[in-house]
Amino acid sequence: MMTNVRIEALRKAMTDNKIDVYYLNTSDYHMSEYVPLHFKTIEYFSGFTGSLATLLVDQEKAYIFVDGRYHGQADKQCLENGVTVVKLGTAGALNPLEFIKENYAGKIIGLDGKRTSVSFGKKMKELGLKIRSKDIYSDLIENRIPLVSDKLFKLDDEYTGKTRKEKLNDLIYCLDGRTHLVNNLESIAYLLNLRGNDIVYTPVFLAYLVVYQNDVYFFIDLERLSSDILDELYADGIIIKPYKEYYSFLKTIRGETVILDENKVNFESYLSLTNRKNKFVHTISPVEEMKSIKNDVEIKNSIQAHIYDGVAMVRFLKWLDESDKEELNEYLVSEKLKEFRLGYKAFDLSFNSIVAVNANAAMMHYGPTAENNSPLTKDGIILVDSGGQYKEGTTDITRTIALGETSAEFKKHFTLVLKSMFNLSELKFMKGLVGKDIDILARKDIWEIGIDYRCGTGHGVGHVLSVHEGPPNIRYMHTEAGTELVPLKKGNIVSDEPGIYLEGKYGIRSENMLLVVEDELNEYGQFMKFKTLTMCPFDLRLIDKEYLDKKTIEALNNYHKEVYENLAPYLNEDEKEYLKKVTRAI
Amino acid sequence: MMTNVRIEALRKAMTDNKIDVYYLNTSDYHMSEYVPLHFKTIEYFSGFTGSLATLLVDQEKAYIFVDGRYHGQADKQCLENGVTVVKLGTAGALNPLEFIKENYAGKIIGLDGKRTSVSFGKKMKELGLKIRSKDIYSDLIENRIPLVSDKLFKLDDEYTGKTRKEKLNDLIYCLDGRTHLVNNLESIAYLLNLRGNDIVYTPVFLAYLVVYQNDVYFFIDLERLSSDILDELYADGIIIKPYKEYYSFLKTIRGETVILDENKVNFESYLSLTNRKNKFVHTISPVEEMKSIKNDVEIKNSIQAHIYDGVAMVRFLKWLDESDKEELNEYLVSEKLKEFRLGYKAFDLSFNSIVAVNANAAMMHYGPTAENNSPLTKDGIILVDSGGQYKEGTTDITRTIALGETSAEFKKHFTLVLKSMFNLSELKFMKGLVGKDIDILARKDIWEIGIDYRCGTGHGVGHVLSVHEGPPNIRYMHTEAGTELVPLKKGNIVSDEPGIYLEGKYGIRSENMLLVVEDELNEYGQFMKFKTLTMCPFDLRLIDKEYLDKKTIEALNNYHKEVYENLAPYLNEDEKEYLKKVTRAI
Repeated sequence: MMTNVRIEALRKAMTDNKIDVYYLNTSDYHMSEYVPLHFKTIEYFSGFTGSLATLLVDQEKAYIFVDGRYHGQADKQCLENGVTVVKLGTAGALNPLEFIKENYAGKIIGLDGKRTSVSFGKKMKELGLKIRSKDIYSDLIENRIPLVSDKLFKLDDEYTGKTRKEKLNDLIYCLDGRTHLVNNLESIAYLLNLRGNDIVYTPVFLAYLVVYQNDVYFFIDLERLSSDILDELYADGIIIKPYKEYYSFLKTIRGETVILDENKVNFESYLSLTNRKNKFVHTISPVEEMKSIKNDVEIKNSIQAHIYDGVAMVRFLKWLDESDKEELNEYLVSEKLKEFRLGYKAFDLSFNSIVAVNANAAMMHYGPTAENNSPLTKDGIILVDSGGQYKEGTTDITRTIALGETSAEFKKHFTLVLKSMFNLSELKFMKGLVGKDIDILARKDIWEIGIDYRCGTGHGVGHVLSVHEGPPNIRYMHTEAGTELVPLKKGNIVSDEPGIYLEGKYGIRSENMLLVVEDELNEYGQFMKFKTLTMCPFDLRLIDKEYLDKKTIEALNNYHKEVYENLAPYLNEDEKEYLKKVTRAI
Repeated sequence: MMTNVRIEALRKAMTDNKIDVYYLNTSDYHMSEYVPLHFKTIEYFSGFTGSLATLLVDQEKAYIFVDGRYHGQADKQCLENGVTVVKLGTAGALNPLEFIKENYAGKIIGLDGKRTSVSFGKKMKELGLKIRSKDIYSDLIENRIPLVSDKLFKLDDEYTGKTRKEKLNDLIYCLDGRTHLVNNLESIAYLLNLRGNDIVYTPVFLAYLVVYQNDVYFFIDLERLSSDILDELYADGIIIKPYKEYYSFLKTIRGETVILDENKVNFESYLSLTNRKNKFVHTISPVEEMKSIKNDVEIKNSIQAHIYDGVAMVRFLKWLDESDKEELNEYLVSEKLKEFRLGYKAFDLSFNSIVAVNANAAMMHYGPTAENNSPLTKDGIILVDSGGQYKEGTTDITRTIALGETSAEFKKHFTLVLKSMFNLSELKFMKGLVGKDIDILARKDIWEIGIDYRCGTGHGVGHVLSVHEGPPNIRYMHTEAGTELVPLKKGNIVSDEPGIYLEGKYGIRSENMLLVVEDELNEYGQFMKFKTLTMCPFDLRLIDKEYLDKKTIEALNNYHKEVYENLAPYLNEDEKEYLKKVTRAI
């Protein structure tokens, strides 16, 4: 094994700073799910390129902690760099916190408090661990990708349905004199009706917001704001300060009641506020709920965005059906799909497309690259999970598509997944239900044949923002933030995406976006239901009707009718004929 | 309005004790759901005979707080006694705690801390209310029903499957040096393998248990123990002290870590322990889980108890079918049913039978009495919710039975309720799921037609104990104790009882008991399923097959086949012929 000179340099910095163990994770300063490339620092030290990992370095050894998705990849990328892989989910594997408690009690643990959440930092403190929050790695990294400094752009009121001033006033009203720290980039973009390019696929920008008594402080570098936007912000009474001055500003806050979302605010923010007679209210940020409840204009636009997306998807499906499969590979297919979206109405994709043939589709987070991809096969299937960013909204859709023949078992599984998706989308339910209450509807038919999918059923989706936002969250499993226990509200947009994943064989997923709407109000209370936003056919060639009940057949036929009616006006004769055929009643 | 002399006496006692407002509730000293008649003290002061209420008395007025079940009854019984009825659930009605906060801030609130839970007392303290815990009412009550002083009886090891010593050792192991207070009567009866007659239908006895370091203190009056039981208890090293000495004993506990179930321990216990350097761990009592997980012997016995109960039920159904309905009323039917149970294997009923004709069945907690009951009708239905106490186990079953013709709408509703019951009982699910996760399966078909039932779907059932025990708890609604979030475990017994209740028209409920068992274990994890314990036919005359899917028809036919096979060996030829007919495949 080679000596890892980068880790050796880190060890020297640790010694210089009297740190025994250094903790590095994949987050940015804003607890983002997707992060700017600038924060791919674990890759620099360990070689690991995945999206989620923790690196622990002491003077003897270095450990990387990765979940099931990345067990093999981490072995391949990290072992040669002298990093031991801890495979989370396997027998005896401790998670980073347990590992630290077990091995480093009494030691000084170094970490970058700007990249760990308040809840993580507090947990470490509760375990009696000694923390030193200091960034000792940045100076060591050569040729680091700089932070993006592109100009922001405005999302006009015709798309947002609510002005910046209205949103801020709503928030301030709800704060009732208390101070609120916002680190979450989607929340800031939402509140300010601004968007940026700092993170691939998620149109946000690095900034902090402090809503301090009646003043709103916006921490962003001035050169990122056009004079028009600047004028607007000033007119709205927003005080602008450089991005870097956020932490020193926090140190001036004293004697306030601060609303702070432990999972969405970084630990350094919290440290900057403690010992200054501030009181803390730990709760989900009110902005989370504000942005998750789409207003009428956002809803109207989202419906349109999904029609645009459906048009691109239908053109893509037609192209794929008519192509000579053996000339294609997954990467070419994903590039072609991108062309259909960006060549029509989307300004970006909403995430890196998953285009996966047969056994590749069993890997939930597989993504082909120009270098690593599989050729399409004459028979079997291809799973395509993709989405677009439109000024009207954000889309996310999965279709599993026949390439040729498939087995009877595959059809059975495809049909049960489709039925499971409709089991959820067709539900009529009482107001007040949470994601945890309804998750089982998308699973029970799959459990019945002794199979499970190891992920949630549905996630919230932002409006021209991240394709993953919560609440709501449809899953029975416990999450740290507890979003599975937040009620589904009128105006929420959630995905509905059950699946079956058979390692080494195939993967199946069917995914539609659902809007939560009100149904009848009667003596029992307010009933709710879902309106399906996604407009794109399911592959009828993969259905075995034996596994469908009358209700699901009716739901499928109704859905396909609606798809045709919504998309036809945007299609040419050829495309319409194709769509008519693939949406025929069964 | 007459002057209420009893309340006037209470007011005088309040003045003597410097109490501004007195709070009285329907609980006993053990936070029991069903209480000894001795504790029907609200009835003495207000006239109210229902099972759940709160009485608040100040020098000017008296208020009784009752839920939806009792709005009418409280008006009838309390108004003439000068007590104002607060109808919980109606617009503007504050619950007792809110009411106290609103009206009596700064006043001295008197209450009997032995009859309120720790969580309630702590909530009052958190609201800054001034509490004086003192029983000032007992001395005022004339001719009060005394506490029961019958001898206890032993439940032999062949029924319990585990000796007293084993149970106590398991508990002590789990306490790990900490002290545990047990006020809950079911827990004490379970731990000691003893039963009593202190509460109607629930075979428990008034006692306290303190598991203090390695010693077990059992607070019960000596004359209630036979010499055999006494010898056994001494042999098991249990220290026996008089029931009344419990609180003074608590005052000797100092410097301990005390595990205390806030909802199951009375406030006085907590007050007796505070300011003595004790630390508290507030958690569900470990005994709750111990007794909810039935061991193999308890399971074998429970299966047998449900067969015995099924035999009694089938004889009852046959009798009812062959009777001249117009000669019967609900009370006579309930007496006859009692005869079938007690004349066979049951030593008691497990609760007061609900026998309700047509519109009466829409009242969820209706129970006929000799004085108040309705005659049976030629057409329509009768709902019978009943259960027995057997040495082998406790049963609880509901059947809705045709008296003659019923409407098409009724049949539709009956069929959907039956389908909903099977939707839940036929589920295969992953280990770790909680009641909240699965509740929706029993509701979704009912919600689909715009109806809901306003109660949980299923409750845990004790073993020769209370017919209601938790965890588990199948409901989506939040409960104070949070039992709906406790995982369903192998060996749990739960009810499955969806319903439709149309006020003034009819009520429908179908209820079976389910045992949680393991299903296959594979790469996805441990699957679980239910085994139905209840053995009794559903009324085929009420089914409209149009509303059943293939799966439910299969489940129903399989169930009826099993019912026949299990019960036939206990029946005579006539009864067998009847059962064969009513369990025929459809």
